[in-house]
Parts: sequence; structure tokens; C-alpha cells
Amino acid sequence: LSTIAEAPLAPLAVTLGDPAGIGPETVARAWALRVEQGLPPFFAIGARAAFEAIGFRQFAPIGDPAPAAELFDRALPLIELPAAEPVAPGRPDPAGAHQAIDALELGVGLARNGVAGALVTGPVSKAQLQAIGFGHPGQTEFVAERCGVSEANVAMLLVGGGLRASPVTIHEPLAEVPARLTSELIMARGRAVARALSRDFGIAAPRLAVAGLNPHAGEGGALGREDLDIIAPAIAALCAEGVDAMGPLSADTLFHARARSGYDAALCMYHDQALIPVKTLAFDEGVNLTVGLPIVRAAPDHGTAYAIAGRAMAEPGAMIAAIRLAAECARRRRDAS
Amino acid sequence: LSTIAEAPLAPLAVTLGDPAGIGPETVARAWALRVEQGLPPFFAIGARAAFEAIGFRQFAPIGDPAPAAELFDRALPLIELPAAEPVAPGRPDPAGAHQAIDALELGVGLARNGVAGALVTGPVSKAQLQAIGFGHPGQTEFVAERCGVSEANVAMLLVGGGLRASPVTIHEPLAEVPARLTSELIMARGRAVARALSRDFGIAAPRLAVAGLNPHAGEGGALGREDLDIIAPAIAALCAEGVDAMGPLSADTLFHARARSGYDAALCMYHDQALIPVKTLAFDEGVNLTVGLPIVRAAPDHGTAYAIAGRAMAEPGAMIAAIRLAAECARRRRDAS
Repeated sequence: LSTIAEAPLAPLAVTLGDPAGIGPETVARAWALRVEQGLPPFFAIGARAAFEAIGFRQFAPIGDPAPAAELFDRALPLIELPAAEPVAPGRPDPAGAHQAIDALELGVGLARNGVAGALVTGPVSKAQLQAIGFGHPGQTEFVAERCGVSEANVAMLLVGGGLRASPVTIHEPLAEVPARLTSELIMARGRAVARALSRDFGIAAPRLAVAGLNPHAGEGGALGREDLDIIAPAIAALCAEGVDAMGPLSADTLFHARARSGYDAALCMYHDQALIPVKTLAFDEGVNLTVGLPIVRAAPDHGTAYAIAGRAMAEPGAMIAAIRLAAECARRRRDAS
Repeated sequence: LSTIAEAPLAPLAVTLGDPAGIGPETVARAWALRVEQGLPPFFAIGARAAFEAIGFRQFAPIGDPAPAAELFDRALPLIELPAAEPVAPGRPDPAGAHQAIDALELGVGLARNGVAGALVTGPVSKAQLQAIGFGHPGQTEFVAERCGVSEANVAMLLVGGGLRASPVTIHEPLAEVPARLTSELIMARGRAVARALSRDFGIAAPRLAVAGLNPHAGEGGALGREDLDIIAPAIAALCAEGVDAMGPLSADTLFHARARSGYDAALCMYHDQALIPVKTLAFDEGVNLTVGLPIVRAAPDHGTAYAIAGRAMAEPGAMIAAIRLAAECARRRRDAS
């Protein structure tokens, strides 16, 4: 058994995301820092033109992941996507959006059949993807569908700065959040997060802190009823299922260091309630982990940053943290199986 | 002129807030730490019973603020409110709620006529105040009314952890926030905050960062229209008036250290958008400053904390920070006048 546990993980698949964004340079930089950052072998998926545009030449084209681990010491293995046009950093185009989706699709497939140890995805632009007819709100929903998991049963878990936080509703206009919030959705996300805490993070008895929707968690109904009518029943039902969940808790006092020591993940009701504390605490190294999937999928918690793309200004910290966390989670799953 | 500038500030009025909360002990503790914390002379307003309940005896009853400065070195001057019943820390009652309002009313009056240099208010319970028929959402709105300033023209400015943030809507159910948000209200709050940055903080050319309402500031309308239709026009109009305002900016990337260095205050659209980052960064020393008033009013940015009241567990850091900040703002106003 110990021989199996010590076997190396299959190399990780890392997509470049939008080739005109900062994905390619953060992946190249993560590879350059592989020794000092202690990163496991990974290979990139994207167009050669994306690396050429930033002057990165130390990649080695591969046809499938098999030779990646051996190549990794001296070059970044790259599964190439065809690109007819050169890439212009900071200037996205439809061809780049298509490459991003193709890389994502290939990466999911390789992770699902186990030849990639986990999937790490580079940043894309939702506007660019929508412009070419991509039918999903983002990469997360696409990955969930390709894995055959309903969107409600996966969760976005942000990890950084000593905090894990998961938004129950995600890319919704704020005005639609109260209507989208149901006890069932809160429970589904809560289950996915609790399971990930034990399966992916190795926490034996995970504790969830559930944020209220309204200021001061509604102050007993004076500032809104959702905390009493929707969130509290979901917490009670989760507890009845054996999930250790507490709340609803006032969101503003939930994220300082002392509060964070009392739980393993915060379940938040909407995007900014989860993302504000994570990015305030860990802007350059926040990781977005999709939990509830049969594969491990992580992403740096930042966007394409077109404004600085190609100028060697992008911080690779979040990409490095995503690769490292994906490998840790994948190892835990493998060792437990 | 320099003689005037160096004249001591009139002593600050500090209300105890709800006598059953942690207000009395944080005020007593701030006084005990007056030398090492470099606090200016202040006097308390509240019931003697609130201090007796926590075993604090080093107070000196006064009838008006005149003798406070001279007494301050050896005792905490106290303007006493009558209390028929003893106070039980952690067990609020209607008599305590009445004392909190009476202290507030007296404190506003003393600050308005200049015999108090500024007003610092201890924490109250909104539920307790509403139970006795208090007709304002909180102390802030009461103070604004007593100062004859419309509620829209004052703003709550949270200060702590290197961040100043002000919520445009405050104690509203989240579902009502989009409807309450108007360009006029954003402008009124923005003006009040910008003026406070120069008048109270001495910033010659204050810069406001305005947060979007929706995730990613609405992503060009894909995630909600308010950022385009309500917030952007308010920012343009503020700029046209000479207020340096930028945005709407994605709220999740607005509060990390690098982002904070680009502005002097963040104008946020709702309670938790402003309070989460401030309390994440500065839980024990956050100050709530009411700007736009003819008086300086500050408060520690925490509640009554009944659960720990009277047990010598309450951190006085926020009360100390509130007293210090109120004095700094009051000195700047005086020196400029």
C-alpha cells in the first residue's frame, strides 16, 4: 500500500485560458519556478502562438500526457491546439475564445480518464466566450456538465489567506440573489463543500459557518426574512444529515482571524460575500476550486487582466497556488482510494 | 493663531450605550489606558449603576463638562443619568435602552454647543431601542436628525486596517438594496465622504473608489444593469462637480493592500460590501464615523456583545480608536476654522 501511495501523481493538465490574457505567462512562470515552488509535473494545453507572443520558448510539444513527467524538468510539455493567427496579448479575439474552450474540453477529458492527475484552468473572459456562443455562464458550469454533475451539486470554493469560502449563488445580478436562494440550493452546496473538506482537504470532522444574507443576518427578521425562512431551515436540515453547520451568522464579523479559526469553510449567499474576504486577504494567491466533481479542478482566482497581458507584470502566485492545491487534493483522493 | 491651534480641545463626550452591553467596560478600560494610549480628556455619560455593575469605581460625578479636563488625570468624569434599578451585564432591559437614548441626546447637545469637543457613542441594541419605541433605525439617524441634517447627506464611514469604506445603503434587507439605490443617494453620500476626507482627515485632493453593485461590477450589463444605469451616471456627475470619483469597480478586487493604496475611501453600495472588508482587516479596532454633520461623531464598530458583557473579556481597542479618531477629526476642524 505504501508503494502505491508514494507513486507519482499523473501530470496535471493546465489550460492557458484566453491566449490574449495573462494565462500563458503565469503558466510559463509557474513552470520556471517549478523547483523553488516545489510544483509537481504538469503540462500545458493551448496554442504555441500564445507562448510565442510572450517570447517563451522552453516548451516541448507532446501529443498526449504520457511523456510529460519525464520532459518536465527541462521544458514545459505542451499539448498544442492549432492556431492560424498569431496571438496579440491584451487584444482578445474569437479565435482565442475558441482555443480556450477547446483546451478546457480536452483538459476535462484527460482528467476524467485519469491520464491527467487534475485540471487547472487559465483565466477566460466570459464576454469573449459569450460572443462566440458559449452556452455556459463560465468554465465551472461547463466542467460540471462534462462531468455529468448537476450544477447545484458542485460548488465554487475559494481558498486563500487562511480562508475557505463558497458562494451559494454565483454569477447572478444582486437583485436576483434573494429569489435564487432556496433551502435546497444551500443544502446542496453545503453538502458538496463539507464532502470536499474531508475528501480533498483531509479534515475529519469539517465545520461549516453559514453566512446570513441580510445585514446582521437579518436581526431576527427586522432586516429581512430570508435568514429565518430559508437559511436557518437549510442549516437545521444539514445538521440533521450529519453536516456540522452553524449559522446564519452576521457576514461582516465572519472573516477576521479569530472568527476563521472557528470553522473550516464559510458558506456564503452570493458572489461578493465570499469573494471580498478571500481577495482582501489573499489577492495574489487566491485559488478557485470546483468541488463536487469526479475530477479535481482548480483555477487561479483572477481574470484575464488584458490590461497588463504580455508585459511580464502578471503575478504568477495564484496560478502556482492553484497547481499546488490541485496536486494536494488529487493526492489525497488517490491515497484514500 | 498658533496659540489658538495649540489650545486643548474641549473634553470629548463618550456615551456608555446600552448599560448591559460592553460599552461601560470598554469606556472604563479606555480611561485606564489613557496615558499609554495618549487619549485626550473625555467624560462619560450614563448611569452610575453601569459602572457599579462591573466594579469600576474610579469615576467622578460632574454636572457639566467644565471640570472634566482637570479631573481626567485621576478619575473618569461622569455625567450621571438617573437609574432606579441596578444594571445586570448581559441582561438588557427597557430602562437601559432609555438610558442609552438619554445619554445620546445629551451628548449630541453638548457637542453641538461646543462644550464637548466631539461625541463618541457606546454600542446599543437596535432591537432593544425599537422595543421602547425609538423611531430611528439607529443612533446615526438620530444624531443626524438632532443636528438638522437630512439622512441622505450624512454617511457612515468605517475606518480601520488601512481602509475607509462607506455604505450608500445601510440597514436595509439585501432584497431592497437595488430599489433603494439611486444616483442622487450615491452622489449625496459621495459628497459627504469626499468633504469629510478633506475636512476631517486633512486630505487635500481626496480620491473615491466607487464599488459596483453586481458581481464584477455587472460585466457590462451581463450581470445586472444598476452599475451602468445608476452608479456610472452618479460617478460622472460627482466628477463634474469636482469630486474625484472612479468606478464602478469590481468590489471583490477593491480591498487588498495594493488596491487600497489607489484611493482614500471606498464608496460601497450596501452594508456588508463595506463592513466585510473593514471587519476582516480590523476587527478589534474598527471605527464608525458619521460624516456630514456639524459635529464629529464616532463609535466603536461593534455591537453590545451581551454574551461577554461584564466578564472583563471585551476588547477596548475599537473604543480607544474611536476616541482617538474623534479627537483627531475635531482638532483638524478646529485648526482649519
